[in-house]
Amino acid sequence: MELNRNLDGLRISGIRRYNALAREVGGCVLLTLGEPHFDTPRPVVDACAAALAGGATHYTENRGDAELRAKIAEFEAKTRHLSYSPDEILITAGATEAIYDAICALTNPGDEVIIPTPAFALYETVTRIAGATPVPLDTSDTGFVPSPERLARCITPKTKLLVLNSPNNPTGVIYPAEVLEKIGEIVEKTGIFVLSDDVYWGLSPCPTFPALTRLKPQILAVQSFSKPYAMTGWRIGYLMASQALADKINALHAHVLTCVSSIVQRAAIAALDFDPSDMAAQYACNREYAHSRLLTMGLPTVQPAGAFYLFPRVSQLCASDEEFCTRLIREARVALVPGSVFGAPGYARLSCCCDRLTLCAGLDRLEAYIGKL
Amino acid sequence: MELNRNLDGLRISGIRRYNALAREVGGCVLLTLGEPHFDTPRPVVDACAAALAGGATHYTENRGDAELRAKIAEFEAKTRHLSYSPDEILITAGATEAIYDAICALTNPGDEVIIPTPAFALYETVTRIAGATPVPLDTSDTGFVPSPERLARCITPKTKLLVLNSPNNPTGVIYPAEVLEKIGEIVEKTGIFVLSDDVYWGLSPCPTFPALTRLKPQILAVQSFSKPYAMTGWRIGYLMASQALADKINALHAHVLTCVSSIVQRAAIAALDFDPSDMAAQYACNREYAHSRLLTMGLPTVQPAGAFYLFPRVSQLCASDEEFCTRLIREARVALVPGSVFGAPGYARLSCCCDRLTLCAGLDRLEAYIGKL
Repeated sequence: MELNRNLDGLRISGIRRYNALAREVGGCVLLTLGEPHFDTPRPVVDACAAALAGGATHYTENRGDAELRAKIAEFEAKTRHLSYSPDEILITAGATEAIYDAICALTNPGDEVIIPTPAFALYETVTRIAGATPVPLDTSDTGFVPSPERLARCITPKTKLLVLNSPNNPTGVIYPAEVLEKIGEIVEKTGIFVLSDDVYWGLSPCPTFPALTRLKPQILAVQSFSKPYAMTGWRIGYLMASQALADKINALHAHVLTCVSSIVQRAAIAALDFDPSDMAAQYACNREYAHSRLLTMGLPTVQPAGAFYLFPRVSQLCASDEEFCTRLIREARVALVPGSVFGAPGYARLSCCCDRLTLCAGLDRLEAYIGKL
Repeated sequence: MELNRNLDGLRISGIRRYNALAREVGGCVLLTLGEPHFDTPRPVVDACAAALAGGATHYTENRGDAELRAKIAEFEAKTRHLSYSPDEILITAGATEAIYDAICALTNPGDEVIIPTPAFALYETVTRIAGATPVPLDTSDTGFVPSPERLARCITPKTKLLVLNSPNNPTGVIYPAEVLEKIGEIVEKTGIFVLSDDVYWGLSPCPTFPALTRLKPQILAVQSFSKPYAMTGWRIGYLMASQALADKINALHAHVLTCVSSIVQRAAIAALDFDPSDMAAQYACNREYAHSRLLTMGLPTVQPAGAFYLFPRVSQLCASDEEFCTRLIREARVALVPGSVFGAPGYARLSCCCDRLTLCAGLDRLEAYIGKL
């Protein structure tokens, strides 16, 4: 019998595919995953242990632990000057579930979702799962910043949602405030929704779309504990939206997984008191270093201002970025992710959320390989 | 703009609504939630603490921790004589996510999902979220056991899936092996899929549909750590299916939440070594006791053989089970869940996964209230 057609041809994340290939080949330097190499900070681990000892092993509200939501409301007011009440906040299983719930709760089949590209593949895939249509908005000739004029031309009566992601994965680019303002004018005029994936904001505070508070009824702001607090494996993030949208999305969330793990939520309360600036500084150093090395190798690379990725152009080296990355793994034992995975053939993503020795070794191997081409 | 139409009218779980009403009214004995009152067993908590100390805070495979899946394969072979390889097992955020993923991955809009009713509301709601059509199969005049003959008459060319849940929520009934065998014949002949929600099996081992191993390609077996190991708040369960189905469902699962919390998965490994029979014995005592009390009160109640629910008929006391339960909360300070929440007006569900004193107090209040009607 025919299963869900929207899942036909759906593949596991390309990032994970290239990571798995590198593990299979063996002996590789992995610059693939966007996963901090740090272990989770001690105070967060201790808070979880205390919650376990205290028997916090029962269901929480679907929306999430009330104390955590109150603390997030306070945290967002303090750090980003955003005003969301605890009931406008949903605790989700990472940003992944927030993005899944938001796109699925907002769209009907046939709706269009505009995705500035290159982009994290999840937006496109979830849009397809929802039966909606992804509309790529090319940013490769505008410094990886979405052009407001081009965006305006992409909008049709079917457009339901625009995805923004700054600091950006895979480019590391931060969108300037004036661009966000211009995009805001278009959003206001057209009434579309904006999913603002801000998961790298905690590592590099910067202009943020949700700060356009007059647009709050149209904004879904997604956050994660994964990147700033090295909590990838815990699976916790959150979504903020106006009451009406938050209620709608909660109705889906409650049926997807009831609530996020209670002990993980207790740990997240402690995370919000942790200052991630030491980790952020190391990522910034790694970015600078990797950028200068890539330029020295002759690989055109936009200077990243946030996150922990670099996105060099490799089309001059090989007809296919996928072939380039596959050969790099097999012949040079260093693993990057092809730009195609992010909808941008001809590039490769290098993740630098690793220790400096690993990064050096990876770049040395890349340089030696390119030198022989 | 119009949001996802499939979510229109979707409400938060009726169980939670009546529980919340009781909390609001205050001073109530809560016999509402299907949540064990026990804290999670010590060895499970210790295993989680050890995982935390060991830095197991990074992503696992989408399917789940390989060691946990291997241990589940072994556990299911030993306890239910089921044969699933670790790659045919997906670790999910409770049975909830397993049910959500399974129904969404299998159905297309317009497909029919047959649900023996009364039933846990999640099946119907998720079917609607998927855009498919729930088809109730009334069991109220067949001792809450689905009639194979009636099932055969419900099947149409659009039928994609049959849900089975034994031991049953909300009735506590266990389906006899010969009924499962007859249902199996129909499933074999028609080629439909079966979602077997076996989350109460661990507390009361009994005939189980997945034991019809010749039907493996059509079966999705759902399990949870919540009930047998008092792990509701942790959010972990699993789904077992043939490789082709498991791969399809994993493609959705990976985009819904990446993977289940790494430390929770480590704790679950220890849970499988824990013998839940002491807890199960207490639930069995509570069931017996509550059943005899309900009969003494003159409430017709099918004898439950598993799980921790009783489902007395209350239609003789009040025209509406919802009104009955609301008045019971407000006037007698004891909270049950109306049968309507399970698609069976005229009944009420009493959950007895509480300590004996609480159960006695609740039944005393119920008896006193009924006495005054």
